[in-house]
Amino acid sequence: MKKKLRLGMVGGGQGAFIGAVHRLSARMDDKYEFLAGCLSSTPEKAELSAKELGLDLTRSYPDYKTMAEQESQRDDGVEVVSIVTPNHMHAGPAIEFLNKGIHVICDKPMTATMDDANELMRAIKSSKAHFFLTHNYSGYPVIREMRSLVKNGELGNLRIVKGAYLQGWLGSKEEDSGSNKQAEWRTDPKRSGAAGAVGDIGSHTMHLLEFVTGLKCKSVAADLTTFVEGRKLDDDASIMIRMTENVKGNLSISQIATGQENNFTISIYGEKGALHWAQENPNYARFSRVGKADQIITRGGAIQNENSYAPIRIPPGHPEGYLEGFAQIYSDAADIILNHKNKNELLELLPGGDSGMQIMKFINASVKSSNNNSIWTDLSSI
Amino acid sequence: MKKKLRLGMVGGGQGAFIGAVHRLSARMDDKYEFLAGCLSSTPEKAELSAKELGLDLTRSYPDYKTMAEQESQRDDGVEVVSIVTPNHMHAGPAIEFLNKGIHVICDKPMTATMDDANELMRAIKSSKAHFFLTHNYSGYPVIREMRSLVKNGELGNLRIVKGAYLQGWLGSKEEDSGSNKQAEWRTDPKRSGAAGAVGDIGSHTMHLLEFVTGLKCKSVAADLTTFVEGRKLDDDASIMIRMTENVKGNLSISQIATGQENNFTISIYGEKGALHWAQENPNYARFSRVGKADQIITRGGAIQNENSYAPIRIPPGHPEGYLEGFAQIYSDAADIILNHKNKNELLELLPGGDSGMQIMKFINASVKSSNNNSIWTDLSSI
Amino acid sequence: MKKKLRLGMVGGGQGAFIGAVHRLSARMDDKYEFLAGCLSSTPEKAELSAKELGLDLTRSYPDYKTMAEQESQRDDGVEVVSIVTPNHMHAGPAIEFLNKGIHVICDKPMTATMDDANELMRAIKSSKAHFFLTHNYSGYPVIREMRSLVKNGELGNLRIVKGAYLQGWLGSKEEDSGSNKQAEWRTDPKRSGAAGAVGDIGSHTMHLLEFVTGLKCKSVAADLTTFVEGRKLDDDASIMIRMTENVKGNLSISQIATGQENNFTISIYGEKGALHWAQENPNYARFSRVGKADQIITRGGAIQNENSYAPIRIPPGHPEGYLEGFAQIYSDAADIILNHKNKNELLELLPGGDSGMQIMKFINASVKSSNNNSIWTDLSSI
Amino acid sequence: MKKKLRLGMVGGGQGAFIGAVHRLSARMDDKYEFLAGCLSSTPEKAELSAKELGLDLTRSYPDYKTMAEQESQRDDGVEVVSIVTPNHMHAGPAIEFLNKGIHVICDKPMTATMDDANELMRAIKSSKAHFFLTHNYSGYPVIREMRSLVKNGELGNLRIVKGAYLQGWLGSKEEDSGSNKQAEWRTDPKRSGAAGAVGDIGSHTMHLLEFVTGLKCKSVAADLTTFVEGRKLDDDASIMIRMTENVKGNLSISQIATGQENNFTISIYGEKGALHWAQENPNYARFSRVGKADQIITRGGAIQNENSYAPIRIPPGHPEGYLEGFAQIYSDAADIILNHKNKNELLELLPGGDSGMQIMKFINASVKSSNNNSIWTDLSSI
Repeated sequence: MKKKLRLGMVGGGQGAFIGAVHRLSARMDDKYEFLAGCLSSTPEKAELSAKELGLDLTRSYPDYKTMAEQESQRDDGVEVVSIVTPNHMHAGPAIEFLNKGIHVICDKPMTATMDDANELMRAIKSSKAHFFLTHNYSGYPVIREMRSLVKNGELGNLRIVKGAYLQGWLGSKEEDSGSNKQAEWRTDPKRSGAAGAVGDIGSHTMHLLEFVTGLKCKSVAADLTTFVEGRKLDDDASIMIRMTENVKGNLSISQIATGQENNFTISIYGEKGALHWAQENPNYARFSRVGKADQIITRGGAIQNENSYAPIRIPPGHPEGYLEGFAQIYSDAADIILNHKNKNELLELLPGGDSGMQIMKFINASVKSSNNNSIWTDLSSI
Repeated sequence: MKKKLRLGMVGGGQGAFIGAVHRLSARMDDKYEFLAGCLSSTPEKAELSAKELGLDLTRSYPDYKTMAEQESQRDDGVEVVSIVTPNHMHAGPAIEFLNKGIHVICDKPMTATMDDANELMRAIKSSKAHFFLTHNYSGYPVIREMRSLVKNGELGNLRIVKGAYLQGWLGSKEEDSGSNKQAEWRTDPKRSGAAGAVGDIGSHTMHLLEFVTGLKCKSVAADLTTFVEGRKLDDDASIMIRMTENVKGNLSISQIATGQENNFTISIYGEKGALHWAQENPNYARFSRVGKADQIITRGGAIQNENSYAPIRIPPGHPEGYLEGFAQIYSDAADIILNHKNKNELLELLPGGDSGMQIMKFINASVKSSNNNSIWTDLSSI
Repeated sequence: MKKKLRLGMVGGGQGAFIGAVHRLSARMDDKYEFLAGCLSSTPEKAELSAKELGLDLTRSYPDYKTMAEQESQRDDGVEVVSIVTPNHMHAGPAIEFLNKGIHVICDKPMTATMDDANELMRAIKSSKAHFFLTHNYSGYPVIREMRSLVKNGELGNLRIVKGAYLQGWLGSKEEDSGSNKQAEWRTDPKRSGAAGAVGDIGSHTMHLLEFVTGLKCKSVAADLTTFVEGRKLDDDASIMIRMTENVKGNLSISQIATGQENNFTISIYGEKGALHWAQENPNYARFSRVGKADQIITRGGAIQNENSYAPIRIPPGHPEGYLEGFAQIYSDAADIILNHKNKNELLELLPGGDSGMQIMKFINASVKSSNNNSIWTDLSSI
Repeated sequence: MKKKLRLGMVGGGQGAFIGAVHRLSARMDDKYEFLAGCLSSTPEKAELSAKELGLDLTRSYPDYKTMAEQESQRDDGVEVVSIVTPNHMHAGPAIEFLNKGIHVICDKPMTATMDDANELMRAIKSSKAHFFLTHNYSGYPVIREMRSLVKNGELGNLRIVKGAYLQGWLGSKEEDSGSNKQAEWRTDPKRSGAAGAVGDIGSHTMHLLEFVTGLKCKSVAADLTTFVEGRKLDDDASIMIRMTENVKGNLSISQIATGQENNFTISIYGEKGALHWAQENPNYARFSRVGKADQIITRGGAIQNENSYAPIRIPPGHPEGYLEGFAQIYSDAADIILNHKNKNELLELLPGGDSGMQIMKFINASVKSSNNNSIWTDLSSI
């Protein structure tokens, strides 16, 4: 009988969007059993949520320290914990579970502050357990295919990368509506960290560009703006970027782009070819090559090669979406933890501590640049 | 603690595409527990598959009769059974389980023959249990929104409906490759029934048009063709249709449409408005109204209304796909079985025996028309 | 100095849409000089229009017979005449000018009736002058490229062709508005002929399919409908078709398709490949090949080959539209008349009398089939 | 009889792409007669080109000074001159003709250097004749409709503007191929000016954003790059921008974006709405409004209003392209010169000297910023 990993969760109680996404993603490929949780910082709410989700109530904990303590002593204790709290509450539980040798799957960005990030990084390095970040867009099969094409040299030397992540949901002062908890904490520097839009979705954008290209961002010149009056963090940003290998480019990040739902696009240009992808129709990419007609890459279609590690649950033309991409992170994490034969290749694909630190530096360098009249700011200075 | 339905499965063993889709769909919204199965007609393979899927082996059965017999006697026996066998193997197990009062979720089309369909229909009528067909495309939220818009009169009196379901996977003699079981049975009249492409995907097309419009197909003039030499069933069809309420239209059905993956589109035209949808990018529809600019309907977006029963797992712009639509059928079936407050509305949405009979008549009228030089053939003549 | 052809026009006076299109198309590539006309059947209106267009008023004629008579006697008389009147007024002037040895460029369809068509065909055969029909969509460069790809065998043996031409402008009784002359004559059997939508836009659809594939339509099974009460001709049609070489397919033709502007699309499927084109974005086509990623053909782009006779006025990415495609017919007609080196190849491309007769038979066979309960009706029976 | 303007041309001889575009554009709406030219700086080539184009050879001039001198003395001398030479040859002839009271239609950008621009500006101010720049993209009807919507407040206060103009034709050292004159002069600082891609297409991008929004660019932070080794001017740029009214944004400009043909897009975001347009399919725009479904604006479609001055040559759904947009500039210029009743409104639409100076400052500020480590650089400092 196949082995399922025992899963716990910190955060993700009633009304939390991302907690439900994590649980659904863990169920998708049937590699996890959800068994324990500390689902809210309010103990009553934690218990209510646990009941609703059908947890054994003896394994619903009032705080993550108790949970780590008690679960680590059980023979059937959780092997993996998902951390789905606001950013400022990532480091605490992550360190606690890692120290107990329990694997952690954590929401991005890694932490709210660089201090927390550094402390967490030390815990990651000294733990035998794995630490994964749910940069979920890197789980889309077509994105992995693009990564594989770049790696195989199909684009030649890279020249330009561009990313745009445009949403409109914070176009007015949503955080004052009293009914949008996500808007509240995402616009609160204490819970989110130094950046708003750049931290929330700029982080995804830079991660995906680095994931697909294998490059690293070295320097940024950023112009962060708060368009909605009274808001405490940026809700829009233009960022010019310089990557390793002399690649350049720019990012457009916005949460006040009226009418946009989750319009996240990337383009990669090399000497020989180019690739374009749009999250809102994620089963396709456009592949250009010098002197040839553009091609349409489809999920599971003609170009797809095995080494892209882009597993196909259903045939081409049957669209997979956001949840399937998210679930891929969970699926791969399970395969790594369970020593799947492709463990090493999968480890290269899944974002962990190094990747988390790089994105933290990107976020903080962007804020620093913007505060200094947009001067070029190296990530190494953070 | 929330109640999960105990689920069994007939068919869907190793290598079966659609069985895995059903199981994943049942898991998606966490309303089912998969506990028993008769996963293959070959007993050894059934047991192997059961092992692989982590079933309690005492509940892996060598044949569906034994399974129905024994499960119905257990206190913790399955409450719902999924039937995911080829068409000719639908009626037998469906009748057996219905007779034991166990709910059935069955793959479409209902059966291979009209005789089987009639017999199954009698069992459905005399059973207290529910019978549902997985016309999964009716689970897409945007499709349900379109149905709601039509019902609310936004298109005025309807005039024309058009459907096209175009695939290319049977463009050569795939059934002789020795490695494509689905191609084998789908092109075999004994297992599939009187029609090939029309039975497999024409059935989806007509169901979806009827689902969205509330109309019924009355008559067809069809031209079915077998383009691949030696194949025993149609692999392409043009069908002119006449619906209730004087609505007319046509269908294009093909499994030899080179390059097409799963290109299923519908258009509905009324006096006041029109709607267009394409399965390969299913989170959007185009909504035309006389004298106004076309609008883009998005899943969960501005137009969405509660009465469309198009639940939103994730926010607009985060694409849901084929599996989420499929899972909606499972989710709604659970809510009906568990007497959810919207039970009656959901019963209208889920395809059952009546809908199954109508589609069986559509399939067989199309074959009859084509055999009679494409003369108009009433479904009531079947 | 380069030679310009002296051009006259019959019809196309004030307020006539298509006359202006012909004149602009003739000007586009600077191969014609517009010098004479009989611009309206109302002499005063003819003169007023001539004045407005800057014609020498001595060459503005009250009727086409006088014009043919006098122009043919001038040394500097017109060499080519454009006929842009309603269908029932094509044959008369066309025959008159052809008999005088003056080339004719005529709007489609060829005539209103088969009798007129036969008579005109005799005049075409006995004249030394050329007769061209403005099936303008065959002038789009990407359409010509598609024809070239089919001819070169890139699609293998063809199997299916599909065409849809969908407009919404006749969704209500526009012909009674008093302000839409085109709606008036197009819905009037005396001026339009036996068919409405099928004659106006069905004709374009069938011509384009034959043009791109080199096949001929042999038989039709048609369902023509008049949805708008009181209208005298069809405003919608579904047509199943059988072509030479055992190719099959279907057409959707409508002028009551709410919200559609000029949505004309064709698809061609062969054993090895397929091509798709949409008139509303005409600089692109999609090219599928078995086992390969789909390619995007662009006007003037990577695939374009010289033998497609798809001249490029401006570089790829600078969209050419309807007028440029229309002008291509004028440009090619001039090159033929002036004995351009590619004269023979261009003659194959430009629709003339044979093509006109074929489309007349297609229109009339469709009407005949529809009147006979949609039975298959051979074009040879017309 | 209607009056046609007598037109001359400087530049645009054999093999020159843009000269042919100007002539075709002038012919499109039949408001000009092309009568004289100085078509090349090489006198023999000038005469050969004149012959080919059917000019009266006595009006083919070896140099623009002679042409200005002699044409201004003829009763039937040219009233308007098109200047279609490389940038460094704009100011000379433009000043010469303006001084003679002959109207000038000049290719963009205005000049190669700021000194030339200032001198030309003085001539423009002191001449009774008009000076127009062919920022042709502002002639697209949908662009004018967008301008009208912004002006009417449909977007509310503007917040962000974004433009991308991406081409791939200079991805390798095309200027050394010996067969691409345009590549040669566009990459030559002496003929092009201080910028390459930014001067050629960045200029269009900024002009169009200013045209649609009515805003002016105030400051830029730019990162210009020369990716192709040995090239003398930038072939790619990222530019962050600050506009009047506290609007911000960014531009992506590239001529080395592999696979891109002429991918020019703009987006305008306001508090209440947003607009998106893409040049490669220019008959459509996307119009978002807070809390409503996105709408599709079509050329000549439901939203179009008369005050947008976006004349419709052909009905919606019949695509107009690049040449029609370009011709609109010529058509409007003629209406202004001939005192059309909408003269004042048209003057607001057509780019002239002020607009030309603004774009020259934008180009030079971008170069200056890039040379100063991308610091914010005010256009007023140029």
